[in-house]
Amino acid sequence: MPHTTEDDGRRRVAFLMPDETFRRVFDAADTARLHAEPALRLLAPYPLDPEKPAHRALLADAEIVVTGWGTPVIEGDVLAALPAVRAVAHSAGTIRPVVSDALLARGVVVASSASANAVPVAEYALAAIILAAKRAFWAADELRAGRPGHAESAWPTVGAHGVRVGVVGASHIGRLLLRHLSSLDMEVVVTDPTLDDAGRALLGVPCVPLDELIATSDVVTLHAPSLPTTHHMIDRRAIALMRPGTTLVNTARGDLVDEEALADRLERGDIAAVLDVTAVEPLPADSRLRSTPHTFLTPHIAGSQGNELRRLATHIVDEVVRFGTTGAFAETITADRLEVIA
Amino acid sequence: MPHTTEDDGRRRVAFLMPDETFRRVFDAADTARLHAEPALRLLAPYPLDPEKPAHRALLADAEIVVTGWGTPVIEGDVLAALPAVRAVAHSAGTIRPVVSDALLARGVVVASSASANAVPVAEYALAAIILAAKRAFWAADELRAGRPGHAESAWPTVGAHGVRVGVVGASHIGRLLLRHLSSLDMEVVVTDPTLDDAGRALLGVPCVPLDELIATSDVVTLHAPSLPTTHHMIDRRAIALMRPGTTLVNTARGDLVDEEALADRLERGDIAAVLDVTAVEPLPADSRLRSTPHTFLTPHIAGSQGNELRRLATHIVDEVVRFGTTGAFAETITADRLEVIA
Repeated sequence: MPHTTEDDGRRRVAFLMPDETFRRVFDAADTARLHAEPALRLLAPYPLDPEKPAHRALLADAEIVVTGWGTPVIEGDVLAALPAVRAVAHSAGTIRPVVSDALLARGVVVASSASANAVPVAEYALAAIILAAKRAFWAADELRAGRPGHAESAWPTVGAHGVRVGVVGASHIGRLLLRHLSSLDMEVVVTDPTLDDAGRALLGVPCVPLDELIATSDVVTLHAPSLPTTHHMIDRRAIALMRPGTTLVNTARGDLVDEEALADRLERGDIAAVLDVTAVEPLPADSRLRSTPHTFLTPHIAGSQGNELRRLATHIVDEVVRFGTTGAFAETITADRLEVIA
Repeated sequence: MPHTTEDDGRRRVAFLMPDETFRRVFDAADTARLHAEPALRLLAPYPLDPEKPAHRALLADAEIVVTGWGTPVIEGDVLAALPAVRAVAHSAGTIRPVVSDALLARGVVVASSASANAVPVAEYALAAIILAAKRAFWAADELRAGRPGHAESAWPTVGAHGVRVGVVGASHIGRLLLRHLSSLDMEVVVTDPTLDDAGRALLGVPCVPLDELIATSDVVTLHAPSLPTTHHMIDRRAIALMRPGTTLVNTARGDLVDEEALADRLERGDIAAVLDVTAVEPLPADSRLRSTPHTFLTPHIAGSQGNELRRLATHIVDEVVRFGTTGAFAETITADRLEVIA
C-alpha cells in the first residue's frame, strides 16, 4: 500500500465531511488536541475532499476517519478511497447516513456523538413536557389571539403534578430524559421493544406496551429511531387511543407519525402536539399542521445548535484520542445495535 | 369568651376564604384528614363566611385559620371576628394580601404553602430557560410567519450549553430552580441582597451584584418578591446593561420590571423576554408587549394550576395537623422574614 506520509507508527486521522459541517462543529482547539496526541497523526488540511487528487492520496492513509453531517455514505467509491480505514468516528447523532453494510463487513469499528447530541434533545423534551402539561403554549396562543380563557376549565388535565409521561424509546435521549423527569413529580412509563428483562429492570420505571402507554399517558414523547419498523408507529389507530388532553411530543423523526391522522385529531381540538420534526423539512407552507390548534412547531432545533455543537466535537475528539492510545473507542456501536438505532 | 362549641381541648380549625378558592384548592380528602386528627376540631361548614351571623359565632372559636386566595386582609373587622386566632395557615404562596401588622402584633404565627407553590414556578422557569436558550420560542414564531431562518446566524448566543443563567432572588422558587439547573451544563449565578455570608455559602453557586448579573448573563430570571424596594428593580438602566442576546424571564411579579423600558429594548430586536406576569393582568389589549419581537407571553400560569393545586392543599393541611399535634408549624414565617418576602 503506498504511503504518502512516513510510517511512524502513529495512527492517521482524517476529517471527511463538508467544509460547512467542519467549520460549524469543530474549532482550532479540537485540531490542536489531535495534533498534540503523540499516538495520532492528524492529516492536514482538514477536512479532506476525496474529489481532489492530493487529498485522495492522504485519505488512502487514513486509519481513523472523522465524519459528520453531509459526509457521503461510506461505500463504493468513497469506501474505495479509504483502503486503510479501521475506525469511523461520526461527529453527529445518527450514523445511518454514513455507515454502510460494506463498511461494517470490513470490520471497521464505529463511534458516534449520539450520547452528546442526546443532551440538548432530552433538555428540549423536558421543557416541552413541562410547558405542555401546564398548557403554556396554548395559553400563549389564547393570549396572543385575545382570548384569555381560564386554562383549568378548557382542558381535561392541567398542571404538571402527577401527570403520566410515556417515553417511547429508551435511547440515549430517552434515558437522559428519564433522569431529568425523576426530579419532577410525574409518573413515568417507558416502552422499548428492543430491551430485554435486564435492560427493562435498569430503567427504574415501569415498561408497558406501546398501546397501553399511548392510551394512559398525559404526554407521549417519542425517542425512537427512524427505521422501516418504526415508520408511522404513531398511526391513525394509535392516535385514536389517546385520551382527550393528551400531548404528543416529537423531537425524534417526523416519519414516526402519520401526520394526516395527527392533523385530523388535532383539528378535533382535544389533543395537543409539540413537534420539532416533521415528515418533510422544512415544513411545507401548505402543511395542515401549520393551522391545527394546540400545535407548537419548531424547525428541527432540539438537537445540537450553536454552543451545543461543542459537545459533539469534544465527544468525538475524546473518542479519536482514545482509539489512538488504546486501539478502541469507549462506546463502539456494534452491528447488532445498528439494527435498532438510527 | 363565649364558646359555641364545647371546650374539649381540641384546637378549632376554620377555613376562611371565598367558596371558589376552597373548591378549587381543597377536596374531600383534605377535610377528612382534618376531621380524623384527634388534636383538631374542624369547624363546619367550610369555608366559613364572616358575613353570616351563624358562621361568625363559629369563627370566634377558631384558633387555626386556614386562608387562601381572596381571603381579606386580617385586620379591623376581620381580625375582630377572630378573637381566638393563634395561627394562620395560608394555602397560597404570597401572604401579604392576608397577613397584617395587627395580626402579627397579636403574636399570631403564620405558615404558607409558598414552598409547595414554588414547585411549578421553578419548573416553568426551568423550561423557559431551556427553550429560550435554544431560541425555540422565536424559531416557532419564525416558522409560523413563514420565515424559517437559520437560528445560529440570527442571534448572538444559541444553545443551552455553557450559557450563564442569572437567578435574581434566592427565594423558595430561586433555590428550587438552582437545584434543577445543577443537572444542566449551565453556569449559574445568583443575586440576593437579603442573604448573609452563611446564606450565600449554602447556595453552591457564586453570588454577584445585580448589575453584574444582568450585564453578564445570557438568561436573567426573576424570583424576587414584589416589595416597595423591588419595584422596577429591572429599570431602564438595568435593561440597558443587558448584552445583545439576553433573555429576561419573569415568573415573579410584573411590577419588578419597567415595562416601557423593556418594550423599547425588545423593539430594538436584540434581547428576548419570557413573561408570565405583567404589571397589569390580564395584559391590556393595547399593551406594547403584545407586538414586541422575541416575546413569549403567558397569562400568569407558572404558579399552581389544575392538579398542582393539590400540593398547596396537602402542604397546608400537613402544617395544620402539625400545629394541632405539636403547637408549632414546621415552617413558621417570622416577622423579620416578612419584610423581605411577599
